[in-house]
Amino acid sequence: MKPFQAPLDDILFSLNHVAGAADVPEYDADFTSEISGHFATFAEGEIAPLDEPGDMQGCSLKDGRVSMPDGFAEVYQAYAEAGWPSLTLPEEHGGQGMDALTLAVTSEIFSGANHALQMVTGLVPGAARVLTRFGSQDQQARHMPGLASGEVIATMCLTEPGAGSDLSRIRCRAEQSDSWTITGEKIFISGGDQNLSERILHLVLARTSDNGVKGLSLFLCPCTRADGSRNAVTVTRIEEKMGLHASPTCQLAFDGAEAELIGEEGKGLAAMFTMMNHARLDVSLQGVAHAARAHDIAATYAAERVQGRGADGQPVTLDHHADVRRMLDEADSLAIGGRAIAHLALVTMERGDNPDLVEFLTPLAKVYCTEAGMRAAELGMQVLGGYGYLREYRVEQTYRDARITAIYEGANGIHARMLATRLAASAPGDAFEAFLLAQAAHFPDSGIKALVTNWQASRDALKTAEDPASLAQGFLEDSTKALLACIWSTIAANAALHPDPARLNRLCTANTV
Amino acid sequence: MKPFQAPLDDILFSLNHVAGAADVPEYDADFTSEISGHFATFAEGEIAPLDEPGDMQGCSLKDGRVSMPDGFAEVYQAYAEAGWPSLTLPEEHGGQGMDALTLAVTSEIFSGANHALQMVTGLVPGAARVLTRFGSQDQQARHMPGLASGEVIATMCLTEPGAGSDLSRIRCRAEQSDSWTITGEKIFISGGDQNLSERILHLVLARTSDNGVKGLSLFLCPCTRADGSRNAVTVTRIEEKMGLHASPTCQLAFDGAEAELIGEEGKGLAAMFTMMNHARLDVSLQGVAHAARAHDIAATYAAERVQGRGADGQPVTLDHHADVRRMLDEADSLAIGGRAIAHLALVTMERGDNPDLVEFLTPLAKVYCTEAGMRAAELGMQVLGGYGYLREYRVEQTYRDARITAIYEGANGIHARMLATRLAASAPGDAFEAFLLAQAAHFPDSGIKALVTNWQASRDALKTAEDPASLAQGFLEDSTKALLACIWSTIAANAALHPDPARLNRLCTANTV
Repeated sequence: MKPFQAPLDDILFSLNHVAGAADVPEYDADFTSEISGHFATFAEGEIAPLDEPGDMQGCSLKDGRVSMPDGFAEVYQAYAEAGWPSLTLPEEHGGQGMDALTLAVTSEIFSGANHALQMVTGLVPGAARVLTRFGSQDQQARHMPGLASGEVIATMCLTEPGAGSDLSRIRCRAEQSDSWTITGEKIFISGGDQNLSERILHLVLARTSDNGVKGLSLFLCPCTRADGSRNAVTVTRIEEKMGLHASPTCQLAFDGAEAELIGEEGKGLAAMFTMMNHARLDVSLQGVAHAARAHDIAATYAAERVQGRGADGQPVTLDHHADVRRMLDEADSLAIGGRAIAHLALVTMERGDNPDLVEFLTPLAKVYCTEAGMRAAELGMQVLGGYGYLREYRVEQTYRDARITAIYEGANGIHARMLATRLAASAPGDAFEAFLLAQAAHFPDSGIKALVTNWQASRDALKTAEDPASLAQGFLEDSTKALLACIWSTIAANAALHPDPARLNRLCTANTV
Repeated sequence: MKPFQAPLDDILFSLNHVAGAADVPEYDADFTSEISGHFATFAEGEIAPLDEPGDMQGCSLKDGRVSMPDGFAEVYQAYAEAGWPSLTLPEEHGGQGMDALTLAVTSEIFSGANHALQMVTGLVPGAARVLTRFGSQDQQARHMPGLASGEVIATMCLTEPGAGSDLSRIRCRAEQSDSWTITGEKIFISGGDQNLSERILHLVLARTSDNGVKGLSLFLCPCTRADGSRNAVTVTRIEEKMGLHASPTCQLAFDGAEAELIGEEGKGLAAMFTMMNHARLDVSLQGVAHAARAHDIAATYAAERVQGRGADGQPVTLDHHADVRRMLDEADSLAIGGRAIAHLALVTMERGDNPDLVEFLTPLAKVYCTEAGMRAAELGMQVLGGYGYLREYRVEQTYRDARITAIYEGANGIHARMLATRLAASAPGDAFEAFLLAQAAHFPDSGIKALVTNWQASRDALKTAEDPASLAQGFLEDSTKALLACIWSTIAANAALHPDPARLNRLCTANTV
């Protein structure tokens, strides 16, 4: 099998020369490059080697406690000691105060090396963001240092058996006497228990009144009470899944568990949503990471495996066959294009000057990048042929792990519907139109203008449609097509700045309009 | 989970009212319907319940012998006692002499119920076909009755570590002294050993001279010698795969194994190819079976799961959401459309009057149907959301089992290349053009004519292309698009003959041009 190699050149090219990271004041290209290099070394040497054995062994539940696969606790210890959990946390609470773009780099590399472990550790920056924005000084002082040091890992407890995409159906209930207590059941909680960190901090969405989603509040629910005793949170099962076997997906029973309210009562969903856009871009980068990994495995294999003959009758390696070349380039394009969309959304978010555009770009990134991960993994398996179907070549794990990304953090169909029914006809749609028009003007010789016209017609159709949701998939596709045309024009204009411009130019030829 | 239900209505509608099975003299619609009903009952009640436990338990290799999962030997015994292995075998050797269309029905149902078991038992009709066509009277008399009774199961031993898609690289060698002996290694042999049948008959492609593919000959290599001792064929490993865990994929070492030549020396590939077209359509129907199964699981779930609200503000089941409806209908269309293509190819083959058209339709069916299985499984998982990712809802197994179909029996890219480089510009291309033109004339108000013109341009481009292989994917897509337009026009014209015409009409609206 091909050992994991972090696609650092591609990532930094995308941030610096496609997404315009330099426009983000906190971003320092050289410093990010240096930090990312350190993380890439750690990910390649320590984290990635556990990906295969973790998939084979999986997690186990015994006496109510979850054990991660062998070696995971040790590598987490090294990760925490090196300070990685605190990368973006505030400096006054023991963090390093780095920017979100740098986190996006390390997060993508982490997901490519070992998505399952990244699932368990990856919510810490989001939880810190919620604490910073909604927590009291006291709450921040009590909870932030543990998150920064790695002693505490955070979880996010939303989904219930009857409430998946529809959070208004949440039944988990919080009641107040001396303090708040939570009672109810949560499912699909990644890292709901684990043996990596000393403690766990659950962020729990629970009902404080019957008023639909307005009756939902957000709570901090630590696994241990102030007196050190174990809180009334129990793992009742862990799920058997298609992939991510090393990420324990827990069913949790809250049985009068002590908790503290964070933010205002009834405003739980709003507090949740401050994590959402970042979380969706994090998931987008998981998809990108899988696409890049699948391409890397397949390209390496295809460059070595001799099969068939060339035009001169001599034996050739697989990558000399037009069909294999096409599949490799498509997988590569999915990773490069998807990453650029996610980075563009992230840079726009961090720039802070166009939140409407962020609203529109984020679902586009989520859908495209997660589809990209699945599709590239499928192509990678196809390049390897029969070997692609074997576990030992790892690309089938890439598909199995990537598959969930199109489902969680809002199923892709929900994002498409939101674009068509809520965003298209309002300010985010206008912001996207302005972006497309500016790009069309910037690349006057490209086919972008025609795609913008097509997109505008598609949006107009939504406005007059009886049921705009029924047009959601088409509108999503037209939006993505126009956006990708802009992205690839930008890549083509800057390909010379990539360490391997020939590769970029070949992809651009296939992808520009 | 949703128990397996054989899509018998859809299958018989497709054969009788889309593919024109009545034109095949041996075909008796009523008799096939009756037999298929019996098989459906057996598959639903006996075979399908082993699909999940078989996937979980997998096969094991101990002391050189393979054990299938618990219960598989018993259900095979029942299958053999009911006479199913002999369905299409010649009557003079204990078979029932049924036609290939009836076998296509039972084979699709078998694959939907338990693809892994079908993999192990499914080569018997093909081996019997090789025996009938190339075997001596003596060979037929010695080998056919065991295949008919189920005492013997056949395997097909082609692939070697260095020879996957490129069979000219085969190194396994046959040498003749008193009798033939085979020495070498074969990989990816489904059912290379098992504990279902008393004996195994390996069909082995081995080298009798160094003259490329012309040095390949076909051999019969039984697992036991004439004196009852064990032949020198050893299972050296079984593969860990993404799916089909209940199908043992064996690496076999032949160490001077006794064998007998079948057909002429140096004509092994030609003998192989008599099985190929049937085998490719059998694989096509595996893809269709997965597509239908995925749709059935997802449609059942979506009709029960309440989530979100309708236009009137009332809670609705998932299938009321436009996006879910779209995914269900797409999965359903993939199954119905794919089956019709495979049936059309098969009926044309059995009619025997247009072998050129069969040559062109077969790769189209192989690629479309196997992609259909994967795509429908992916859609099915998406409909189920987080539950789709769990093993207990079974649709993730559908994807894992379906995935191999796009790889084996000729990777899909090889079929596309063959269409573009060998078939398009010769008689098969002409036969396909004639078919399309006839369909365009038969449906003058459809958009078929435009798609035919587009296809003709695509074929012309191949003729002048420097490297036609580089246009293979586009040509495949244009060919499939034109063919599907014909298929759906035929379905639309006959939808009233289906037991659920409303469903068919809805799908036709989405698929006709």
